[in-house]
Amino acid sequence: MTTATTTSTATAAVPVNRGDRLPPTAIATVCLSGTLDEKLDAAAEAGFDGVEIFEPDLIAAPAGPREVARAAADRGLSIDLYQPFRDLDSTVDDRFARNLVRLERKFDLMDDLGCDLLLVCSSPLDTAVVDDDRLCEQLATAADLAAERGKRLAYEALAWGRHVNDYRHAARLVDMVGNPVLGNCLDSFHILSRDDDPAGIATMAPDSIFFLQLADAPKLQMDVLQWSRHHRCLPGQGNFDLAGFIRAVQAAGYRGPWSLEVFSDLFRHADAGRTARDARRSLRYLAELAGHDPAGAELRRVTGDVVSVRVAAGPVMAPKVAETLSHIGFDLQGVDSETGLRLYRDADIAVVVDATAGTVWTAPGLPADMPSIAQIGMRSDDPTAWTDRAAAFDVPVASVAAPGTVSTGDEVVRLEVTDTLAVDLRAVVSAAEWQQRFDLVPRQPEPPSHLFDGVDHVGIGIATADWEGAMLLLRSVFGMHVDDGLDVPDAVGTMRSQALTMPTASGSTVRIVASMVPSQLDAHGPLRRRGGLTHAAFACDDIVDVARACRSRGLRALSIPDNYYDDLRARYDLPENMIEQMRDLDILYDNDGHGGEFLHFFTPTIGEDLFFEVVCRRNGYRGYGEVNSPVRVAAELHRRAVEEAGGR
Amino acid sequence: MTTATTTSTATAAVPVNRGDRLPPTAIATVCLSGTLDEKLDAAAEAGFDGVEIFEPDLIAAPAGPREVARAAADRGLSIDLYQPFRDLDSTVDDRFARNLVRLERKFDLMDDLGCDLLLVCSSPLDTAVVDDDRLCEQLATAADLAAERGKRLAYEALAWGRHVNDYRHAARLVDMVGNPVLGNCLDSFHILSRDDDPAGIATMAPDSIFFLQLADAPKLQMDVLQWSRHHRCLPGQGNFDLAGFIRAVQAAGYRGPWSLEVFSDLFRHADAGRTARDARRSLRYLAELAGHDPAGAELRRVTGDVVSVRVAAGPVMAPKVAETLSHIGFDLQGVDSETGLRLYRDADIAVVVDATAGTVWTAPGLPADMPSIAQIGMRSDDPTAWTDRAAAFDVPVASVAAPGTVSTGDEVVRLEVTDTLAVDLRAVVSAAEWQQRFDLVPRQPEPPSHLFDGVDHVGIGIATADWEGAMLLLRSVFGMHVDDGLDVPDAVGTMRSQALTMPTASGSTVRIVASMVPSQLDAHGPLRRRGGLTHAAFACDDIVDVARACRSRGLRALSIPDNYYDDLRARYDLPENMIEQMRDLDILYDNDGHGGEFLHFFTPTIGEDLFFEVVCRRNGYRGYGEVNSPVRVAAELHRRAVEEAGGR
Repeated sequence: MTTATTTSTATAAVPVNRGDRLPPTAIATVCLSGTLDEKLDAAAEAGFDGVEIFEPDLIAAPAGPREVARAAADRGLSIDLYQPFRDLDSTVDDRFARNLVRLERKFDLMDDLGCDLLLVCSSPLDTAVVDDDRLCEQLATAADLAAERGKRLAYEALAWGRHVNDYRHAARLVDMVGNPVLGNCLDSFHILSRDDDPAGIATMAPDSIFFLQLADAPKLQMDVLQWSRHHRCLPGQGNFDLAGFIRAVQAAGYRGPWSLEVFSDLFRHADAGRTARDARRSLRYLAELAGHDPAGAELRRVTGDVVSVRVAAGPVMAPKVAETLSHIGFDLQGVDSETGLRLYRDADIAVVVDATAGTVWTAPGLPADMPSIAQIGMRSDDPTAWTDRAAAFDVPVASVAAPGTVSTGDEVVRLEVTDTLAVDLRAVVSAAEWQQRFDLVPRQPEPPSHLFDGVDHVGIGIATADWEGAMLLLRSVFGMHVDDGLDVPDAVGTMRSQALTMPTASGSTVRIVASMVPSQLDAHGPLRRRGGLTHAAFACDDIVDVARACRSRGLRALSIPDNYYDDLRARYDLPENMIEQMRDLDILYDNDGHGGEFLHFFTPTIGEDLFFEVVCRRNGYRGYGEVNSPVRVAAELHRRAVEEAGGR
Repeated sequence: MTTATTTSTATAAVPVNRGDRLPPTAIATVCLSGTLDEKLDAAAEAGFDGVEIFEPDLIAAPAGPREVARAAADRGLSIDLYQPFRDLDSTVDDRFARNLVRLERKFDLMDDLGCDLLLVCSSPLDTAVVDDDRLCEQLATAADLAAERGKRLAYEALAWGRHVNDYRHAARLVDMVGNPVLGNCLDSFHILSRDDDPAGIATMAPDSIFFLQLADAPKLQMDVLQWSRHHRCLPGQGNFDLAGFIRAVQAAGYRGPWSLEVFSDLFRHADAGRTARDARRSLRYLAELAGHDPAGAELRRVTGDVVSVRVAAGPVMAPKVAETLSHIGFDLQGVDSETGLRLYRDADIAVVVDATAGTVWTAPGLPADMPSIAQIGMRSDDPTAWTDRAAAFDVPVASVAAPGTVSTGDEVVRLEVTDTLAVDLRAVVSAAEWQQRFDLVPRQPEPPSHLFDGVDHVGIGIATADWEGAMLLLRSVFGMHVDDGLDVPDAVGTMRSQALTMPTASGSTVRIVASMVPSQLDAHGPLRRRGGLTHAAFACDDIVDVARACRSRGLRALSIPDNYYDDLRARYDLPENMIEQMRDLDILYDNDGHGGEFLHFFTPTIGEDLFFEVVCRRNGYRGYGEVNSPVRVAAELHRRAVEEAGGR
């Protein structure tokens, strides 16, 4: 039994035609970091067909427009759009005349660039023309000029345009002008940020849509211009209904490029190659959402629950992890003689502890041993089918013959979410089946207990720089759903978290709660998240029974202060004996206001990061007890302070 | 000649009574990071007189209310307020009845806490009472209950209250109820975030103001609730007119505590001790602004221009720095035999280069030598007076007898802005005076050139974690003014920058441009700011002449692409010969739209961070050519790529 790992990428292992299922794809140079050369390289390498040239990128480039045209052509990229031309119309006649001169200069440049399409934005200025007839006159003048020069203008309603800020208004103006060189540019951000209904797009004449720009965004309550310029993201990273948007565009008969225009503070300093790969992946995801590829949904339906969690613990902390696992019902059931992996079980749930050195993520200034969840194991009726799916999204997968492999044909398919976290898909139904492969058994193996019904959710930490990419991967390849994100302030910071869910064939729900770890430096090295973050939460029906069982097994659950229960009394009309029971067993409580209830308790944090949680959901409660998260953090800080003072 | 350094703090060196000039001060526990114990420690150590207990901090604390009361008393802290009590009033009668039960429970808690004042916020809920008479009835009922229990209620209009969101409205309701246990809580954020006029406060009855909460904030265009919960800052770190606010409060005759309530994502994970010290300092700053201490303004008036800049270069890069300095007119004039510091001069401006090892800031993953500006030298007629001033703000100062000291009585006073940047104040009038102290002279010392009229501005980089503290220090001790901050996107990220200015006695202006350096980790260590960031900009009248002089001295100014000048042509009606001249000499241009013009050029970046700039301001231009910053960054990236490809 070896742990052979082969990494395969889309192009290497599986013959998937990535091109023919997608419309032509493009990306605006503003989405990518670096010099214009670096941007073109990244776009080409990710497989894009074309680019939009963002004017400031050209102005700052040492290469002239002809050289840029050649550089794009050499890389097999078309230049689909030059952008933006701002503030064309004006109530000040001199100003408008001056703008026409500026327009001609840009046509000169576009001649050299070999690009015939210019983006013209509606004006946000005080001097924007408010009268539609006069505005049409000015647009018509510009269109005549464009026609003379063999150019076309794509008119776009900015969400913050002073007079024109609605795509239907812009389309009416384009119609009124009636010059075939003047058409519309549709940008999903400008439309969906206003909560405008994209259905109207479906009735537009296909020839009138000159260009399509796509961006997603998180729902933020802020000034739309700032939102647009700093917080856009790729389709599948935000909260817009882009599926509905793209279906309306398809209904209109638009057949041009799908182009990404994402202004993002994160992407501006991220690696351009990685952003471009994620960007290309996001268009495939969008195509699937729009109905091009329903295979993904089929595939997800043959995928089941989370059945295992692997903890990278290292040799020093592994006994600590084992002790806590034992307290909550997980006993050692076997050891793999070759890898040293240890299998702990409760009924059908497996926790595998990796006690080998070098498996634990470290960074300058962090303690050497910080046990953390390194892998989530999900059941799948057809794991190898996931290889093809991952390949379609250009996600590298590894075929792993790891402990627990039942036969050589029954491999584990591993997808890396980040450098330190993978998801494994395996055909095994329960931990009992693969226990045999852990060939060493402890001297007195206890039969597994049965406290839990399954894994309720897994909490993972993702560094700021990995956040957008991980979200896209979980939503695209796995088709997970997101609710709105949550910001939870506590004693050591504000935790940004995002729950992702996926219904399984059996009617259960796979739940992952991702939290952003701000990977900042202070004078002493990287900041840690005090109190811990990554965790596995196990589900049960009778949490009082389970808490008592854990106590009898030796657990000292994280101690919750009396103040908490006094506040529960003030807030809710709960039976006094229930409150006393919860207080006795350190169980926390939440109520969704619609009858749904959530009860949960925690183990102490092991090392700096890892803890376990036991939860009980009642009456369709859908959250995660986030309201109690600050209480857990403060309780853990206190526990640690007492321990450090020797008062344990 | 020795480089003796003595660090003195307020309590050690100068007998300044910090207590008697300030009203009683308090801080809400929510402002500080950590456990409740840690928060109380930090508040006490910083010299606060009292605290507001933020309810979630108490709920999460293992200590009960009586123990918390004792813990506060042991530290000499009063508990001035318990907060918040939310959503008291309700159109649903059952709900209001339930809220009164909740209120009683909180009175129980306050009995144990030994605190008689409770903050009651206006309700933002759909069920908030809209009818003033009915709202008064409910407030009166709550007040009667409070009176029975010996408690007082401070009613606060939240900026996002559904019905009550204006302090004047809240004050009317308090008047209408007419129960002496019901009063007002005034929070500067809730009033100034709405652009409400605080002048109305001046006419309120002093007895009706029960409590005062202070916070500043940057001007952000975003949802006010999110703004309030995540982006408040200390007085002197934001853009509110807190001086006007506090004067209105004083005019009303309020004599209670000035209490800080700052919800900040930054402070939630910052060191509590540091936050508390900054917080106490911010109240002193505010007191000065409000006119308690006009001495600061006097002191600033005897302070003059920036006369010197010290570059920490290290032995490897020092010759590179010297070469670039020589290209722009700064020649070696002397060397200090003891410290190895080298003096370069142009007329009255000195650049001192520290070539010793260990003076350059390094971090894991950064190149060992990254020349950077380590010290800014300002002229002062009375440098030692600054010692007292710094002490009053509890800012540590060092008295440095450094090269350039004319006599032992004429010391340099050094204030550390961050760990890597200091401001020196010295009585010297010009670099010529202190050159004698650099005892070694180069074999053929050239007489100093005279290209520049002075230092136009100094650009400094400040890590995210140091940002708020550095802003407060520059604004409080130096009394610098801020404009609104700027976010400038470029090829490698979005640069947040903030200009600070200070008028001098001679009518000139000291200008510092601070830029935030996101000190994040990626997989390979800390992210650097590619293209460089810290710089000194020298002022001249005839930039074409100076550019030619520099060229003849060997400078190859940072090369600006032709595309940039083509765009200038499209944007402005500039004379063609002017554009050609600028193109030839790589001079960039900006225009403020009111006749003000700015011309500037750059040296290449030396190492990873440092460059020099030559600027020319015309007709009252007040900016820094920020619009050209992305062009500089891209040009520098290109230059480096060419150099690395061996194409130099």
